[in-house]
Amino acid sequence: MMLRLYDYPSSGNGYKVRLLLALLGTAYERVDLDIEKGETHTADFLARNPNGKIPVLELEDGTALPESNAILWYLAEGTSYLPEGRLERAQVLRWMFFEQYSHEPYVAVARFILMHPGMARGQAPLLREKQDRGYQALGVMEGHLAGRAFFVGESLSVADIALYAYTHVAEEGGFDLGRFPALTAWLARVARTPGYVPITAV
Amino acid sequence: MMLRLYDYPSSGNGYKVRLLLALLGTAYERVDLDIEKGETHTADFLARNPNGKIPVLELEDGTALPESNAILWYLAEGTSYLPEGRLERAQVLRWMFFEQYSHEPYVAVARFILMHPGMARGQAPLLREKQDRGYQALGVMEGHLAGRAFFVGESLSVADIALYAYTHVAEEGGFDLGRFPALTAWLARVARTPGYVPITAV
Repeated sequence: MMLRLYDYPSSGNGYKVRLLLALLGTAYERVDLDIEKGETHTADFLARNPNGKIPVLELEDGTALPESNAILWYLAEGTSYLPEGRLERAQVLRWMFFEQYSHEPYVAVARFILMHPGMARGQAPLLREKQDRGYQALGVMEGHLAGRAFFVGESLSVADIALYAYTHVAEEGGFDLGRFPALTAWLARVARTPGYVPITAV
Repeated sequence: MMLRLYDYPSSGNGYKVRLLLALLGTAYERVDLDIEKGETHTADFLARNPNGKIPVLELEDGTALPESNAILWYLAEGTSYLPEGRLERAQVLRWMFFEQYSHEPYVAVARFILMHPGMARGQAPLLREKQDRGYQALGVMEGHLAGRAFFVGESLSVADIALYAYTHVAEEGGFDLGRFPALTAWLARVARTPGYVPITAV
């Protein structure tokens, strides 16, 4: 069986996995679910991820692996996208946990509120707060990237891929990336990687 | 130089690291910061973690490693608390990312609102929603633990430690753990591990 990715086209979390699979040149089957129609809460899907969220990667043996950053880690093992050293690996995880705790809930959720006003009605009053905390996360990234080409070490890793996914479309969440020159240069650097695909690629 | 942990006593994220260090029998120096007095936003601390959050582990060479689950991964490497296999390691990460994205922001934040009403004033109106989503996370854990002793494989891993920290004090966030028998049995199982220390240990 081929790798199968359960996904949603505009999801940055799904795009992380699509981007890494493209960089690796790995063939896979993609199953797009419509989260607006509740397709991630069917009994069939909940058997793959009881938390009801895409992306889920189904492995060759049928094992279902949820959580975008855990999938990145799994796929990157043994490739140039995951460093070898114990401390470098921990630093990659440090930025991946930063992404899920201090970045995605603000940068991605602000975008979700603006892109899906129907589904996000309950969160709309929180847009300004999401943007304020999103700017804090972008500021932390800017400070780290000043004088660095990539988040950890000297080359692209899954830490960069995890943070790139929602950052490069942050303007769809109302963020002005012009305030962050080192971050903007890093976005361009990631997009120049051979094999790169945009979030809109089918 | 000895390992140094920047921490806050009632933090479950800090406790994860304290618990693993105790299980490993690793000596370390602990520096408690008072988050209510802004001690995680001084220039000195922000040089260690520009995101302004404890815990931070300072390594023997002075390197600062933020993010509780990245610290757990670093410390567990090469021990029984981190499995060897590629898929098992990814499953450990799957539960650690679940913890930071779908569990901690609800189970821990509900507790924070009730324990620190002064600091959490802006979040207090969200208590009921935090509890609803926290119950969803606890339900996902209950379903996974039915028929299992630990989250991944047959023994305690950093996935269990990450999820244990805020779950075992969830009643301080207003959660009724009596609804979750498999989870309650798992909590008792973790607490019986030789070397276990409670969250209140100094």
